[in-house]
Amino acid sequence: MDTNGSRQARYRFALVRSFSLSAGSGHPAAAVGGRPKEQRLPNHADVAPLLADVDWELLNGPVAPYGDWAVENREEFALVGAARLGIVREACESGRYNAIVLLGGGEPGAPACREIARRYHLPVTSAAFSQMHVAAMLGNRFGVIDLAESHSMHYYDLVLQHRFADRCAGIRSIDFPHGRPPYGHDEGRDIHAEKQKALRGEHSDAVEKATAAAVAAIEEDGADVIIFSCSGTFWLRPFVEKRLHEIGWEVPVLDGLSTSLALAKAMVDLGVDASGLVYPGDRPRRRRVRRTF
Amino acid sequence: MDTNGSRQARYRFALVRSFSLSAGSGHPAAAVGGRPKEQRLPNHADVAPLLADVDWELLNGPVAPYGDWAVENREEFALVGAARLGIVREACESGRYNAIVLLGGGEPGAPACREIARRYHLPVTSAAFSQMHVAAMLGNRFGVIDLAESHSMHYYDLVLQHRFADRCAGIRSIDFPHGRPPYGHDEGRDIHAEKQKALRGEHSDAVEKATAAAVAAIEEDGADVIIFSCSGTFWLRPFVEKRLHEIGWEVPVLDGLSTSLALAKAMVDLGVDASGLVYPGDRPRRRRVRRTF
Amino acid sequence: MDTNGSRQARYRFALVRSFSLSAGSGHPAAAVGGRPKEQRLPNHADVAPLLADVDWELLNGPVAPYGDWAVENREEFALVGAARLGIVREACESGRYNAIVLLGGGEPGAPACREIARRYHLPVTSAAFSQMHVAAMLGNRFGVIDLAESHSMHYYDLVLQHRFADRCAGIRSIDFPHGRPPYGHDEGRDIHAEKQKALRGEHSDAVEKATAAAVAAIEEDGADVIIFSCSGTFWLRPFVEKRLHEIGWEVPVLDGLSTSLALAKAMVDLGVDASGLVYPGDRPRRRRVRRTF
Amino acid sequence: MDTNGSRQARYRFALVRSFSLSAGSGHPAAAVGGRPKEQRLPNHADVAPLLADVDWELLNGPVAPYGDWAVENREEFALVGAARLGIVREACESGRYNAIVLLGGGEPGAPACREIARRYHLPVTSAAFSQMHVAAMLGNRFGVIDLAESHSMHYYDLVLQHRFADRCAGIRSIDFPHGRPPYGHDEGRDIHAEKQKALRGEHSDAVEKATAAAVAAIEEDGADVIIFSCSGTFWLRPFVEKRLHEIGWEVPVLDGLSTSLALAKAMVDLGVDASGLVYPGDRPRRRRVRRTF
Amino acid sequence: MDTNGSRQARYRFALVRSFSLSAGSGHPAAAVGGRPKEQRLPNHADVAPLLADVDWELLNGPVAPYGDWAVENREEFALVGAARLGIVREACESGRYNAIVLLGGGEPGAPACREIARRYHLPVTSAAFSQMHVAAMLGNRFGVIDLAESHSMHYYDLVLQHRFADRCAGIRSIDFPHGRPPYGHDEGRDIHAEKQKALRGEHSDAVEKATAAAVAAIEEDGADVIIFSCSGTFWLRPFVEKRLHEIGWEVPVLDGLSTSLALAKAMVDLGVDASGLVYPGDRPRRRRVRRTF
Amino acid sequence: MDTNGSRQARYRFALVRSFSLSAGSGHPAAAVGGRPKEQRLPNHADVAPLLADVDWELLNGPVAPYGDWAVENREEFALVGAARLGIVREACESGRYNAIVLLGGGEPGAPACREIARRYHLPVTSAAFSQMHVAAMLGNRFGVIDLAESHSMHYYDLVLQHRFADRCAGIRSIDFPHGRPPYGHDEGRDIHAEKQKALRGEHSDAVEKATAAAVAAIEEDGADVIIFSCSGTFWLRPFVEKRLHEIGWEVPVLDGLSTSLALAKAMVDLGVDASGLVYPGDRPRRRRVRRTF
Repeated sequence: MDTNGSRQARYRFALVRSFSLSAGSGHPAAAVGGRPKEQRLPNHADVAPLLADVDWELLNGPVAPYGDWAVENREEFALVGAARLGIVREACESGRYNAIVLLGGGEPGAPACREIARRYHLPVTSAAFSQMHVAAMLGNRFGVIDLAESHSMHYYDLVLQHRFADRCAGIRSIDFPHGRPPYGHDEGRDIHAEKQKALRGEHSDAVEKATAAAVAAIEEDGADVIIFSCSGTFWLRPFVEKRLHEIGWEVPVLDGLSTSLALAKAMVDLGVDASGLVYPGDRPRRRRVRRTF
Repeated sequence: MDTNGSRQARYRFALVRSFSLSAGSGHPAAAVGGRPKEQRLPNHADVAPLLADVDWELLNGPVAPYGDWAVENREEFALVGAARLGIVREACESGRYNAIVLLGGGEPGAPACREIARRYHLPVTSAAFSQMHVAAMLGNRFGVIDLAESHSMHYYDLVLQHRFADRCAGIRSIDFPHGRPPYGHDEGRDIHAEKQKALRGEHSDAVEKATAAAVAAIEEDGADVIIFSCSGTFWLRPFVEKRLHEIGWEVPVLDGLSTSLALAKAMVDLGVDASGLVYPGDRPRRRRVRRTF
Repeated sequence: MDTNGSRQARYRFALVRSFSLSAGSGHPAAAVGGRPKEQRLPNHADVAPLLADVDWELLNGPVAPYGDWAVENREEFALVGAARLGIVREACESGRYNAIVLLGGGEPGAPACREIARRYHLPVTSAAFSQMHVAAMLGNRFGVIDLAESHSMHYYDLVLQHRFADRCAGIRSIDFPHGRPPYGHDEGRDIHAEKQKALRGEHSDAVEKATAAAVAAIEEDGADVIIFSCSGTFWLRPFVEKRLHEIGWEVPVLDGLSTSLALAKAMVDLGVDASGLVYPGDRPRRRRVRRTF
Repeated sequence: MDTNGSRQARYRFALVRSFSLSAGSGHPAAAVGGRPKEQRLPNHADVAPLLADVDWELLNGPVAPYGDWAVENREEFALVGAARLGIVREACESGRYNAIVLLGGGEPGAPACREIARRYHLPVTSAAFSQMHVAAMLGNRFGVIDLAESHSMHYYDLVLQHRFADRCAGIRSIDFPHGRPPYGHDEGRDIHAEKQKALRGEHSDAVEKATAAAVAAIEEDGADVIIFSCSGTFWLRPFVEKRLHEIGWEVPVLDGLSTSLALAKAMVDLGVDASGLVYPGDRPRRRRVRRTF
Repeated sequence: MDTNGSRQARYRFALVRSFSLSAGSGHPAAAVGGRPKEQRLPNHADVAPLLADVDWELLNGPVAPYGDWAVENREEFALVGAARLGIVREACESGRYNAIVLLGGGEPGAPACREIARRYHLPVTSAAFSQMHVAAMLGNRFGVIDLAESHSMHYYDLVLQHRFADRCAGIRSIDFPHGRPPYGHDEGRDIHAEKQKALRGEHSDAVEKATAAAVAAIEEDGADVIIFSCSGTFWLRPFVEKRLHEIGWEVPVLDGLSTSLALAKAMVDLGVDASGLVYPGDRPRRRRVRRTF
Repeated sequence: MDTNGSRQARYRFALVRSFSLSAGSGHPAAAVGGRPKEQRLPNHADVAPLLADVDWELLNGPVAPYGDWAVENREEFALVGAARLGIVREACESGRYNAIVLLGGGEPGAPACREIARRYHLPVTSAAFSQMHVAAMLGNRFGVIDLAESHSMHYYDLVLQHRFADRCAGIRSIDFPHGRPPYGHDEGRDIHAEKQKALRGEHSDAVEKATAAAVAAIEEDGADVIIFSCSGTFWLRPFVEKRLHEIGWEVPVLDGLSTSLALAKAMVDLGVDASGLVYPGDRPRRRRVRRTF
């Protein structure tokens, strides 16, 4: 674990990725082994200030069991979600962390991770959970920007599960579904290539489409806040925010990692993780006769 | 596949179990290999009439990846849910079935199974889904009888996911958590032993507690219909129903398997499986700009 | 009663029409007396497979008390709904049926019919009830296609009564209100004439408008499933479905009769009809102290 | 029509009863023909001040088509509801009234009456509608006191139809179902006999039970306001109110007739009756493309 | 107090304005001191019939503590709301009134006013409360027409507070924010100047925009009834209503003052003001253990 | 302002009290002038770790305009809420802070404070807002512990305003209403005296009653998390938490100040304050045509 000095840091976080692709996959997110964690963490620059007072490690996700591509539909989410549980359990058992931050916009395996971590009194935050809760603090309704049809409907399920249906103004897709190998041959719809263009200051269709989707969410759907569903689109946050502000829309634009870090810190500070009644152990000391909605 | 005669049956169902335990586990549900499917299907007698016009096969579930015991908490559900997907996919690909019936009260992996089967235009039904939908046809609010604290909260999530929070009068637990190996040493709280007692016409604490829970659901919680959360409790249905009717409460009592079979038949008859907009393929022909709640 | 052979059929259904018009009315649906039930049942061909294993009779509805035209507004629904109750009661008393299927999209008298039939332990299904419940199994939100302004608002009430307001994406009217006598002089807006055109393979404005309404329901309103409100439009189902699939929208399109038959079968199979707490007798054995929502 | 002077009164109301029983029925409410309207109007004294500035007539309801007893279950409500429409239509056509006040707690036929009256721009108020709307002005949640199991569930439907499920704290029954002929032989459970006792200052079980139900609604169900479902219980209002105030519960207690009169006056004063979009004519000048919830 | 004759009038209302501006402010609503109450009451002609049988006084609001302009944003509403409480308390204490009618569309201080008046058993009505409740009686959903962005969001809060979120089809702004001194230099966007134009029969942009907003609320948002948020726009009611009826939309159009008067009368007639459980005194005789939603 | 060193602290918070009582009032919270901020901040020890990395100032609230006692009912909240706005505005204008933390459980003036601070891009957190949002992260439903009847209903309004009605399991009062001067003569029901007893390790009725209320909230109301409504009860948090854990209920127990600090930090870290669409300026650059719920 990193140490920023001699005394124990207040925050000791495990950042757990959703999945790993093989170095040979050609996927832009794959060939990152061996490099410093800052380089391996997507969009590190955007969250660097939030990590400044955190001892953090970046744990690799499980090798994607379904193939060498990014998780997108419900089946893939179920598979990597299950595969990630052991990593989270091990992180909890290690005693090295005081919070678990799950990477991955569609938060694979999150409810089970939270159940596991509860036994260690460790908070777990994840991208959909964190964005929705922060968005609800900032506005009445949030709009979601997604990148693929199947992913959108997985995210729809998450909105229901987190009980934010009445706060969600809608999910809009910009139609940049994740590529499948071989990579590098579908430039026009490659969200990673878009990121590189945008970072280089070039025109990016993804930025244009995401901005247009955000404007439509505001003007047509009634959104007060914008969030992103897939971690592959989190890099868009500052670009879309800037564009909206230029247009004159003063709406907060969130992403999954920064909000997950902020809420993890808040939970650590408050000494809370989750209600033991919602994530009970197998044989809890006290049992409730009835659970209501 | 069974054939009830020379012509193709209208219904050709794969009944897919949630998990398998090892024969050596000592678990009452484990040592069932090699026997006829009717003996291997739990509570077959209760659903025999519903199966009379069905060509059906009973597919084994995956070996429980977490240990030699029945699935109970969110972690275990995530693990067996993921592990079952391959079995479901294979069943779909085989072309032998026109519907998939998922066994298991907590319906592990159901959303992903439905997504997979949608590509084959096959309906998928499962226990929570089917009971809740049938219950909503019969009454204003349903009460759930569960057997363990952690299972109850997994089921709570299912109620939210299926959008029935306003129709669920509450989840009551009778506190018969699944045993852990070595089996056979916890008679007093063994739901399987209770079943044997009840079938032999003996007093069963589980029947008593479930009846009391149903009465409380009706009288205190406002339930009009009773459903069971865990497949380990489905055998209670006729016992509880009889008791309620004796008391004078004319409430329908449902179980997960019979309702799953009935709705699977209804979907086959109607030629429907699921909306392609809710379970879209990876690259659907048409995409929606916006999804709303 | 029809008999398909020597042994008792599993399903013995009374299909009860909403109303009768006089043979002299000139209404296309009127002059059907004396013909075989298959010819008298609207859109029989669409549901023939569902009726293949059913012993069914088609019971005439009451003579429309308000005039010689099809039921459309709330007043007319109240009048024929009341007039139909005696027919349903007699059907229940006859002991010939094990389910009552109410024809008529706006399901006149349905709650009272269900109350009556409950005393005979007979399930009752109807068009709005059945389509909404099946739609809720298939998608998140359904869109309704209606034909007249007053009928739409009667249907609006049904959506509320069946507690599906949060699952209904909207009701769109294609503006083909039922004719009034003398018939045959309003071709351009005659839904029955449209049906004949469509069946002959000719262009039908009603098919065009219904398809456009379905597309708008999907694209603008967020519908995942399409249902029809008025039985006069049920014939549109296969036409609209085909058109939507051609366009690329993989959405289920339902109608009231097929869904009513499928759910009636499901209820018969499950041995359920309705909760005795929701449809209590006049002096029930047990009474509840409090009813909640 | 009564005239309180030479100039036209501001309010000219038709009070329309739900049903008529035969004089020979022996029913306490039956033999009222020929007497002044003040004597025929149940609980006239309670509403006399509200009627002081109203020109009103009391129109008899239709002869109960189902038998010589008071309306109680859904079937009976459907029958008298339909039978009352002609009376309401005639009242509208007469031009003598500027509002229709429907008597009867379960408001038989009310939606169709409102549709009919809309064409004459006449407001219609009724007991459930009026009590619920006034209750919603006075408190967060109202409790309903009912007298019979089947009536309670009819009322449950009304709560849903009027969209007050989230404001209704529950329906409690005091179990005084309406008698059936021969009358006068079931004293212990006769709500009319109870009324006479109470008016004579004697002990009344109905007052006791209604007070207890109101207290339970307040203390256990969270009601802030009390309403009565059946017009046969409206006389309880001042008795229950007095008892509650003695106990120290400062909750408004409403009844159906006084609230119906008050809201009818409010609508007349405002020149409104109902939205033409909710109660459209058969061929309205403008049609809406889409109706939403 | 005015007296319309020798005997006590049934209704004795205090109409309490929201705020006062200085005569020197130049604000069109300011220089009204000394004139008869009929001239000082905005849009008196529109409500004159409703006031005909009322003994009423027009109480000046507090001098606007934030500056010499009309209340518009949350801060201003909080300030004048607090400042008005003393005036309301004094009115209650005077014993001269049997109801308090709060002027001001955004109803500053209304919940506290109602709490104060409850101790005197005096009903309090206000513009948002009254319009929303009457609108809910007339239709399924109401649309709100507002005049400024900050005012709209204050009104949004009121919709939530009054629990009408599911009945509100949306709030549309016509963008006529209140002016700031010096007045008279912003003619193009001056709502008071618009009123004068309209009253003179001239073209008024405000009437045009409000009509367009109402039509959009009906056609696009699903509104059945139209209400106005700010008292500065109440004068638009007859103009917009007339226009809508000309177009063929038969929707009720309400305003805050007439509905407040009508509901105040209804409450006086019914002898109710508010539930003592919702507006309890500081040391109530009875306390509830639990409050629910 | 405190400085923890030479460089600018990340967090610079103004903690703004709700009100001030006179030193001569005898109120235990009054005579605190001149002492260090740590002594003046109620329950400083409970939040000291959260304040360790914050430069904070404690700003006095306005002198209570209604009398020399603690704020309790809606009128008092409206008065101090308005009076506090100027203090908040001044704090915003000073440029010394990057967040405003409003003290006071019933968060007087909070919406207007947030509107004011939005113009300075400063987040504002408050006790009800913060506890409800954190509670929603930790469990499905939260129970509120309150101390007085009128305060409870003010809090009820806050639950509605913050849109948490469906997450609030109920508000339970322990009946320790704030005293009125002269103080010190009502020991048995003095929440401040209870605090002193508890801190001295003595028996405290308030601790007993709050624990009982929390247990009832969990067992009867379905609460998963406990929060406190009035700042006068925040000191109970560690006592109730300890008791619940001893009993075996693993539920988070929150208080308003610690959650307000944690969320203020999270907002500062994320660079967000509130949506400009929810708290717009008077003449925003962009305006929305329509606002929806």
